[in-house]
Amino acid sequence: MDFFFAPESIAVIGASPKSGKIGNVILRSLLESSYSGRIYPVNPKESEIMGLPCHASVTEVKAEMAVISLPASIVPGVVRECGESGVKGIVIISGGFKEMGADGKRMEEEIVSTAREYDMRIIGPNCIGVYSPKNGIDLLFQPEYAMVRPGRGNIAVLSQSGTYAATLLEWIRMEGFGVSKMVSFGNKADVDEVDLIEYLADDPETDVIALYLESTRREFLPVLRRVARKKPVVILKGGQGSMGSKAAMSHTGALAGKYEVFRGVIKQHGGTVAEDIEEMLDIIKILSLRVPPPGNRVLMITNGAGPAVSALDFMEKGGKIVPVTVVEETRKALAESLPPYCIFKNPIDLTGSASGDMYVKAMRNAADAGDFIFMLFVFQDGILADTYGALLDRIPDLMKETGKAVIGISSGGPFTEERMKEFQAAGVPMLRTPKRAVKAMEKVIEYGRFLRRYQSD
Amino acid sequence: MDFFFAPESIAVIGASPKSGKIGNVILRSLLESSYSGRIYPVNPKESEIMGLPCHASVTEVKAEMAVISLPASIVPGVVRECGESGVKGIVIISGGFKEMGADGKRMEEEIVSTAREYDMRIIGPNCIGVYSPKNGIDLLFQPEYAMVRPGRGNIAVLSQSGTYAATLLEWIRMEGFGVSKMVSFGNKADVDEVDLIEYLADDPETDVIALYLESTRREFLPVLRRVARKKPVVILKGGQGSMGSKAAMSHTGALAGKYEVFRGVIKQHGGTVAEDIEEMLDIIKILSLRVPPPGNRVLMITNGAGPAVSALDFMEKGGKIVPVTVVEETRKALAESLPPYCIFKNPIDLTGSASGDMYVKAMRNAADAGDFIFMLFVFQDGILADTYGALLDRIPDLMKETGKAVIGISSGGPFTEERMKEFQAAGVPMLRTPKRAVKAMEKVIEYGRFLRRYQSD
Repeated sequence: MDFFFAPESIAVIGASPKSGKIGNVILRSLLESSYSGRIYPVNPKESEIMGLPCHASVTEVKAEMAVISLPASIVPGVVRECGESGVKGIVIISGGFKEMGADGKRMEEEIVSTAREYDMRIIGPNCIGVYSPKNGIDLLFQPEYAMVRPGRGNIAVLSQSGTYAATLLEWIRMEGFGVSKMVSFGNKADVDEVDLIEYLADDPETDVIALYLESTRREFLPVLRRVARKKPVVILKGGQGSMGSKAAMSHTGALAGKYEVFRGVIKQHGGTVAEDIEEMLDIIKILSLRVPPPGNRVLMITNGAGPAVSALDFMEKGGKIVPVTVVEETRKALAESLPPYCIFKNPIDLTGSASGDMYVKAMRNAADAGDFIFMLFVFQDGILADTYGALLDRIPDLMKETGKAVIGISSGGPFTEERMKEFQAAGVPMLRTPKRAVKAMEKVIEYGRFLRRYQSD
Repeated sequence: MDFFFAPESIAVIGASPKSGKIGNVILRSLLESSYSGRIYPVNPKESEIMGLPCHASVTEVKAEMAVISLPASIVPGVVRECGESGVKGIVIISGGFKEMGADGKRMEEEIVSTAREYDMRIIGPNCIGVYSPKNGIDLLFQPEYAMVRPGRGNIAVLSQSGTYAATLLEWIRMEGFGVSKMVSFGNKADVDEVDLIEYLADDPETDVIALYLESTRREFLPVLRRVARKKPVVILKGGQGSMGSKAAMSHTGALAGKYEVFRGVIKQHGGTVAEDIEEMLDIIKILSLRVPPPGNRVLMITNGAGPAVSALDFMEKGGKIVPVTVVEETRKALAESLPPYCIFKNPIDLTGSASGDMYVKAMRNAADAGDFIFMLFVFQDGILADTYGALLDRIPDLMKETGKAVIGISSGGPFTEERMKEFQAAGVPMLRTPKRAVKAMEKVIEYGRFLRRYQSD
């Protein structure tokens, strides 16, 4: 399916000079991206759009990939023309198919059968297309002023919902992360999650797969198990109850099953289940930074007690992460290197007087106590605000030396948000609340168990 | 307790010329605020700080309120001096009291008994003090570059944890909301949540009280019931399990009870329980905009199906909010005013082609169907990005005409975040995910039930 992500040439069928039209934004997105292949606008009513000659039909050009935004009723004919002209992959943005009832379903089936006839693959219909920054593939009909694009990175985003795809792309960008490939597969008439995770399993650009699903097919499970051994697949299921399922059905025409069963089976096959879109973001942030899934024993280091109390609350509720006891020997080592007003338990409370250097000392002397570290920061406190740099500079080495992953927890305004980005750039995933950190790490730890079970097979 | 929020004069005891010192930041915060009363720095080692004459002892000045940041051991003596000089209220920032064990506890008791002797009230110790933008009271030792301050508004923030107080203040500011008063009460040696909610019940500036607690006393409940009849009290409990409780104890020296019992009892007395700090933010946003707690029947209007599916999922899981059925008459009215590709069920799906005007028509024709409206927005979609203004201009009137509250749901990057602020300024609380909207509205609806039960008494 490389032709979807690195095609030599793209036909934009339904390209339009009218601003606000979907075929207008798609063409602009492509032109404004770094895509270096040929672009062929196709629209029988125009002779030129955005400085490019416009073609009456896709049969007039040689395009490896085509993106279609036209009324549903004329799409089947255009798909046949694509086949005639040698197109290998088609992305159909248009809605109006299976999700609209029997007539739409028939058209969708016709399209698929035409695609098979010509050995073409189809993404969509009823989707927001493909985004792949490496080769400048940007088929998004969301204008850039309304939706920022992330740069290159190791997260692949796959989504049955265009909205969730757009949200994840923007959040990933705002957090300072990047994506390898995004595919919004909508009605998944042809290419679906099974094809895509299988394809991405061998994609060297992709380390984490984020997948929003409203339904799936039986073949997903064995493929998931194979893929999950190579890289994590984080799955959010929409249509979890009977009400949501019904709405999902009129969304992408998909039938969905019972959520609890789904979740259990997915876990068994190595999938990581996110309970909502924010939890998905949190988990993929951790995995994108290649945090090796640790064991479940945690040490906490903090300069504020309130959030540490909350972290303990949520660990106890979840019952999956266990705070270690700080043994006497560790306590002594800490007491020798840190001021006496610190509290040498778990959490190690460095108090509001904590400096970056005190975090370094705490980590160096106590990291061995657990499998990983929750490091809580009140960056608002003046001393830490002025001295956090001493920790930031050392943290990559400290993680290497101690072999322990650090998960940061911090909540606040612009100053805190900037510090969070700096720590993330240094390899420390920063979560916005204690609850979110605990929930996300529960899932990462669970994935680690799957990996170890597999390794010992 | 007015002297804490609008004192004629303030002594800053432990004021310091050294940047980074707590007594330095507090003095600077006050000087940079709009406080118009007299400020007396007190420090026997200095003759002048930041251009103000510095006094050797608080007994040399006439201050109505004093804020103390000194080592714990000398605080009891200074408190007595405050009494001698006629101070009415003292805010003790310093830690090193009850939370540090028996000696600290003794000192704390001594302070309280001195305060009783002189008829003074004490906030703290071990806290970040008081913030009240109306009169420029800013005792925060978090420098402004590291922590943004919210302007005036109708949310009161009370917190046993300084960290959570700081987080809420910054989040409230970033969301475009404002606060009436913030009190971080730490060890609550004297003034505690009971005094504070009672005081705020009659504060005309305050419409919503946000309260982070790690423990409380029996008297809280009857007071809560009285206050909750006047205005909502949104409570987050830290130390919910046995682990968290222990940590809370070494934090503010407080003993805490079993969480489930706590939660049940709080609800019975009209308190609104938030399960974590983000949920607290969401609930107070809704209540700050004076959304009258509605019934539990919701109509949804959206231009993206994915998040609507999620909203249904979380409503079904929660079992507290019920999506209404769009009856034939409403369906007809919608079909007459909106394009045929829209889906006239609940959610009303205006599709990616939705304009601001289509939202207006959907709301006008269908608002009667339920008690309130979840309005979901994909602002990334070009058409809505260009036309949302038509809805924004009309939404205050639409809410008035229909009598239905609108709760917005939207997720995305900078463009979306800006739109969210605009809609909030127009009176529509904007929540970041379907899950968060459902969870927060469950709590608001529950508070409405308490109010109605009381009204029918």
